[in-house]
Amino acid sequence: MSRVIVDVMLKPEIHDPQGDAVLSASHRLGFSNVSRVRQGKRFELEIDGPADEKEIEELARELLANPVIEEFTLRSAD
Amino acid sequence: MSRVIVDVMLKPEIHDPQGDAVLSASHRLGFSNVSRVRQGKRFELEIDGPADEKEIEELARELLANPVIEEFTLRSAD
Repeated sequence: MSRVIVDVMLKPEIHDPQGDAVLSASHRLGFSNVSRVRQGKRFELEIDGPADEKEIEELARELLANPVIEEFTLRSAD
Repeated sequence: MSRVIVDVMLKPEIHDPQGDAVLSASHRLGFSNVSRVRQGKRFELEIDGPADEKEIEELARELLANPVIEEFTLRSAD
């Protein structure tokens, strides 16, 4: 069994209203030194047997991320 | 300027319908060796000046995670 983390974030040029909402809320709560927030998704996958990086990449592209507006990174969590 | 990553995941004992939906979809798409998926959130914060870990922890607890059902981890991205 192997574990893989897939982080999915909006591409830098894509506007992130969720991140902006968190930024405004942090200022309202007094955390005034926060200057930027981006919000994304994190997936923890458990794979039977060894993880095939090419296969996980395909899964991420087809299922976890929208390649038009998002980018993803894979890393082993073992 | 410093950068901090906050990962927010459901506590292990909390049912994760989003992760389960991704798991079913991966099987439908032929990725049969995926045995478990958990979905969470990832925040990238930019902080003016050095990051005060205690302060970021407070922000995460108040704003980014729901401590009743979620747990979070902080790490520097510098």
